[in-house]
Amino acid sequence: MVTKVRAVQYGCGPIGCSVAKFASQRDDIEIVGAIDIDKNVVGHDLGEVAGLDKKLGVNISDQAEAVLSETKPDIIFLTTSSSLRAVYEQLEKCLRASVNVVSTCEELAYPYRKETLSAEIDKIAKANNVTVLGTGVNPGFLMDTWPLFMTGVCQQVKQVKVVRIQDASPRRGPFQKKIGAGCTLEEFKERVEAGTLRHVGLSESIAMIASGLGWELDDIRESIEPVVAKSPVKTDFVVVEPGQAAGVKQVGKGLRQGEELIILEFEASVGTLESYDAVYITGIPDIEVVIKGGTHGDIATAAMVVNSVHRVMEAPPGLITMKDLPVVSALGAKRERGAPCPTDRGLALLNRDG
Amino acid sequence: MVTKVRAVQYGCGPIGCSVAKFASQRDDIEIVGAIDIDKNVVGHDLGEVAGLDKKLGVNISDQAEAVLSETKPDIIFLTTSSSLRAVYEQLEKCLRASVNVVSTCEELAYPYRKETLSAEIDKIAKANNVTVLGTGVNPGFLMDTWPLFMTGVCQQVKQVKVVRIQDASPRRGPFQKKIGAGCTLEEFKERVEAGTLRHVGLSESIAMIASGLGWELDDIRESIEPVVAKSPVKTDFVVVEPGQAAGVKQVGKGLRQGEELIILEFEASVGTLESYDAVYITGIPDIEVVIKGGTHGDIATAAMVVNSVHRVMEAPPGLITMKDLPVVSALGAKRERGAPCPTDRGLALLNRDG
Repeated sequence: MVTKVRAVQYGCGPIGCSVAKFASQRDDIEIVGAIDIDKNVVGHDLGEVAGLDKKLGVNISDQAEAVLSETKPDIIFLTTSSSLRAVYEQLEKCLRASVNVVSTCEELAYPYRKETLSAEIDKIAKANNVTVLGTGVNPGFLMDTWPLFMTGVCQQVKQVKVVRIQDASPRRGPFQKKIGAGCTLEEFKERVEAGTLRHVGLSESIAMIASGLGWELDDIRESIEPVVAKSPVKTDFVVVEPGQAAGVKQVGKGLRQGEELIILEFEASVGTLESYDAVYITGIPDIEVVIKGGTHGDIATAAMVVNSVHRVMEAPPGLITMKDLPVVSALGAKRERGAPCPTDRGLALLNRDG
Repeated sequence: MVTKVRAVQYGCGPIGCSVAKFASQRDDIEIVGAIDIDKNVVGHDLGEVAGLDKKLGVNISDQAEAVLSETKPDIIFLTTSSSLRAVYEQLEKCLRASVNVVSTCEELAYPYRKETLSAEIDKIAKANNVTVLGTGVNPGFLMDTWPLFMTGVCQQVKQVKVVRIQDASPRRGPFQKKIGAGCTLEEFKERVEAGTLRHVGLSESIAMIASGLGWELDDIRESIEPVVAKSPVKTDFVVVEPGQAAGVKQVGKGLRQGEELIILEFEASVGTLESYDAVYITGIPDIEVVIKGGTHGDIATAAMVVNSVHRVMEAPPGLITMKDLPVVSALGAKRERGAPCPTDRGLALLNRDG
């Protein structure tokens, strides 16, 4: 019998539930605790809150330190906020309890621009001999690790452009509202100014790509505009009239001496005909690579978090990012139940010394 | 001034020349030696042999040990053969001289099925505190590392299929001949039986994918067939009549209890209309990702080898494979000349603590 990885779910909102749901299906992971401060979920079983058809035998608690000291987990899934400042205290508690952390905190995906905070996190993690990773589908994969990975076949890179176009119609209601679908253009503008309508992570992704390619940028810029509906759109959750916002288009640029070296375009709206993710590398050679139909954000984020677990536990202590982690892959279906994790010796019996 | 990586080119055939050419253009690498046994190139300058417009001041020598002891390189580009047995003695010499190795030897890309040899290589590398990597575009990237990398966004994987379709018309003459273009079907069959018409690497790629996903396969099979020309094809190097071979289609399958878990299809022929590389993952979710126009084999192989240099030098000692290496990316154009290699602190000056 193989020892399971003991995990605690910290943050039981939609993303946390999605992570916990997937983790609970893995035969190499056992969820041993759950933390949240929301009175509506505290005291309830994580399985019920996550929409599983069974209890997990794990009650959600608002006493983080008690959960950590009682369960002594190997790893924490930290899914409470996009803001590094907001998660900092929680993160620190986990690290001081000598627990590895994988977090969906977008600003943690490439946090080195927040110099003091990232240096502090790295120091505390090393002092407690544990590893911290920020990941997810975006940031963490589609607009940073994936384009960087694709440049490996290039002898020269002059520009990296990534485009993510998402049809939000089949997504959760809160997601459709989050991207401004159904707002008037005035409301949209107000929400942008209030900072409540913003995908967090483009600047982090740009910084990761620049670092990977050895580019020292002198500016990173982001812009946010509505995608304006040309015809009426109706989903299960919103109605959008022509002239209203159907969603958001956010563009991030990494510049050097005025030249656009990195361009990230993120568009999520209801009524878009085609979803896709694409990387365009200008270089030797040019590379154009497309994920047809795009990548489902919630499924893929939970996948990236859980699929990273073994890599994070094997990594050297400290703060790391996706570009410095060996390939994060899924586990295939139909493994032997309880079979050891991927081994390089599994095929040795075949063609023995050929 | 940053210290350059000192490299020796071992093997000065077409792939070796392609690697040396790219390496000589990098400002972070200095080629300090070259080895080959071909009387036609021994004594000549590597720059001239590689088709550079300048001499590199490096004469090709057939005395491998003398070159290694005189130049004391940091890394060797070993590009002499597809066969692990054939490169083994050369590889051993490099490792015993305490030099890291990146090799295009296809069987080294995932050599664990050759149990004794791979264990020996790992042991010698560790004893001499150096690292060995087999890489290239295929195997090394397109049909193994790339599909594994893409599974990271999946919660479950049931099947992985990779298709590489190459129009060989614009490629080198020797490549067109190697894939059988212009052969009668009888000649094609004879060359397959003689083992001279075979892409080496499909089994290695299948084994790497299986290991990454935790699948224990019970069989790996390969088949080779001609792509038969339907109409006449004429390139700069060959003429193909209808009914003759225009190229090769090779299929590799990884099976478990008769089920095809991994399918790799490699097709290279003259007169193909469209080149592309594609990964199809059946799972949760399904993923379809396509490199439009495909990936140029020679350029990309040289890129992968040279782009891996820093990752290999930073890796722990021993035998490693691409799936266990952090993301291998290119260096961007327009770096400061002599600028340090990619650093996570380069962007720290921007948005200092936000």
